[in-house]
Amino acid sequence: MKLESWSGLSKGGITAVPGFKAAGIHCGIRKNRDKRDLALILAETECAAAAVVTTNKVKSAPLLLTMENLAKTGGRARAILCNSGNANACAPGGTEAAVKMVNAAANELNIDPSQFIVNSTGVIGFPLPVDVIAAGTPELVQKLSTDNIPAAEAIMTTDTFPKSYAARFEIGGKTVTIGGIAKGSGMINPNMATMLAFIATDCAISPKMLQKALRESTKISYNQVSVDGDTSTNDMCAILASGTAGNAEITGECADYDEFLDALNFINLSLAKDIARDGEGATKLLICRISGAATYEDAARLSKSVISSSLVKSAMFGADANWGREMCALGYSGANFNPATVDIRFSSYVGEIAVCRQSVGLPFDEDLAAAILGEKEITIEITLADGDFSAEAYGCDLTYDYVRINGDYRT
Amino acid sequence: MKLESWSGLSKGGITAVPGFKAAGIHCGIRKNRDKRDLALILAETECAAAAVVTTNKVKSAPLLLTMENLAKTGGRARAILCNSGNANACAPGGTEAAVKMVNAAANELNIDPSQFIVNSTGVIGFPLPVDVIAAGTPELVQKLSTDNIPAAEAIMTTDTFPKSYAARFEIGGKTVTIGGIAKGSGMINPNMATMLAFIATDCAISPKMLQKALRESTKISYNQVSVDGDTSTNDMCAILASGTAGNAEITGECADYDEFLDALNFINLSLAKDIARDGEGATKLLICRISGAATYEDAARLSKSVISSSLVKSAMFGADANWGREMCALGYSGANFNPATVDIRFSSYVGEIAVCRQSVGLPFDEDLAAAILGEKEITIEITLADGDFSAEAYGCDLTYDYVRINGDYRT
Repeated sequence: MKLESWSGLSKGGITAVPGFKAAGIHCGIRKNRDKRDLALILAETECAAAAVVTTNKVKSAPLLLTMENLAKTGGRARAILCNSGNANACAPGGTEAAVKMVNAAANELNIDPSQFIVNSTGVIGFPLPVDVIAAGTPELVQKLSTDNIPAAEAIMTTDTFPKSYAARFEIGGKTVTIGGIAKGSGMINPNMATMLAFIATDCAISPKMLQKALRESTKISYNQVSVDGDTSTNDMCAILASGTAGNAEITGECADYDEFLDALNFINLSLAKDIARDGEGATKLLICRISGAATYEDAARLSKSVISSSLVKSAMFGADANWGREMCALGYSGANFNPATVDIRFSSYVGEIAVCRQSVGLPFDEDLAAAILGEKEITIEITLADGDFSAEAYGCDLTYDYVRINGDYRT
Repeated sequence: MKLESWSGLSKGGITAVPGFKAAGIHCGIRKNRDKRDLALILAETECAAAAVVTTNKVKSAPLLLTMENLAKTGGRARAILCNSGNANACAPGGTEAAVKMVNAAANELNIDPSQFIVNSTGVIGFPLPVDVIAAGTPELVQKLSTDNIPAAEAIMTTDTFPKSYAARFEIGGKTVTIGGIAKGSGMINPNMATMLAFIATDCAISPKMLQKALRESTKISYNQVSVDGDTSTNDMCAILASGTAGNAEITGECADYDEFLDALNFINLSLAKDIARDGEGATKLLICRISGAATYEDAARLSKSVISSSLVKSAMFGADANWGREMCALGYSGANFNPATVDIRFSSYVGEIAVCRQSVGLPFDEDLAAAILGEKEITIEITLADGDFSAEAYGCDLTYDYVRINGDYRT
């Protein structure tokens, strides 16, 4: 696929898509006036819409309202509304608060409340201060623009940078644009779901095929990310597709669908890697690539087990080539593989080093290993002898700062 | 059951059992001469023997040799041999090294090599320095005594204190003694298996019923412990039963079996809690008690999910009553429960506080909560409305020291 891409912060991420505007303001949920806490994304026209949400049995009130809305409209929506600073999960009056925040925006924009995808992120169990959200809504609507950054910032919690990507490609001679924003950082181990990621495109695609593409894409991207093994109550990846690019609507599996899926994968993988890179307290992005697995599911599970291991993550923080921890994490993953035929290599910008062949330790240059693992992006390359399938998973190191951030999150 | 118990370090743990001796020496696997690294436990007579081992697909060479031996003898053994400082897993020549260390001890003691339970603990992937083990074996055998401490110390890795318990009870008018030692600390998330725990008793019980009791007991003790979610390649709980107490041999399920199981549970739960309390970098023991679950399996899985959550563990380190993290961990556990009827209370020596009722946050006194969570042993009490089953799980807080220890383990 010919894909022109950019990481969006200067050229626009979600607002790189024609017909979409976004805004992010400080309405007062957070005490710090410099931290935006309310975001809105608006399409000029009604869009095909799809969402993938957390598998956690405990689900936030706005997440449940979103699923109701999408069922009611048959997969159509015009807007995405999201606050940070409060998750509106296990909170007194949570459902009423979610309805009220949507109604305030719906009234201001003069569109039906069922046209909203809505979510919240932050601390669990405290009442959502919905009055300050309602009071801030006129300003939020007034600030809608093609600047992507305020909305990307307004959904951040302990993230240290906004995450935003866009790409442009062609379908049937028509230029199609896709862009997205995401937040991650803590309580991150999506499972058939995501952290918060909001994607927009002007591609013409039916709600059914949009949902299918989103599910396929989240499986290989956000679902392969783990920061701390905790799957949140509010995870959501939602997408709006306006159809204004003018391509023939995608209504089934075809070459156009594959093109669209490639572009969606590019955006979601880019955002997923940024989420791992910006995990709470993280100093490094860890990529574990498994090849030679008997099935994709085995490869996916093995790679995720490795990047989820606290011992692997701590060793990577310390630039310690203690590869026995990778072997151990493969072994308890629950996936099928031959434990006697495992090769392990570490690589980064600096170079590559083999540390284990056929499941037995190799002598290796500790100084070179330390230099490789001292970089900001590390690949753990594991080759099996069981088949032809491969997968990647994305994580980060475990650091003193993770403990500091989470030992005292609420204060 | 009338049970007289003691925590063994002064009165003897495993050596409190008549007919058992133990030794622990520094043979030279570790550089630090003050750290013992080789342990031996010897019974005067052949015993019924049983073991439960790791579910990790990658298993250490000595662990595999132990399973072969027990199969060969039909569940009989006289000795337990274990080194620390090297796991002999994924190591060049691992099987030969395991055989060689057993043969050295078998020759010295003049018993058959198949009478040995053997294991190793430490770093993965490096050749076991079996020559220093063989050279140290005469001294090891010479130092056999009724002092429990040297052996308990010799199996320690990053443990900060030796773990040892014993208990005395009666079966059919005969006094029976049971005692054990264990090590834990890191790479600890046993699953149908344990860290290293070695138990001895003079109870008369068949190998089959001994294996059954051990499996039942590890399920509610070590398998409900998690320090860091990493299930080791070397986990093992082994037991020797000499039969010299003179009770009628237990050969089936009966009142005597239940008495024995109660005593075994007491030893294993005591050691399991010590392992959690002494988790790498830990400052606190966390106990999560689930009641009102629909099945035992649900209760066990829910409690283990809570004490395994990095976010819960970090919050406990910070004495932060951020109970939404417990709700979240229940939700992603995979267990069945009604997420709308959850009550949560925290308790410790200082007092008790309710923070969530029917899945909604309660207003609570933050100062009292901080005081409760400031203690060294915290109970997270979660009540469901789904049935009559309960379970406990045991963990520890996640601290800066966990990261420090594991960021630089090999150096």
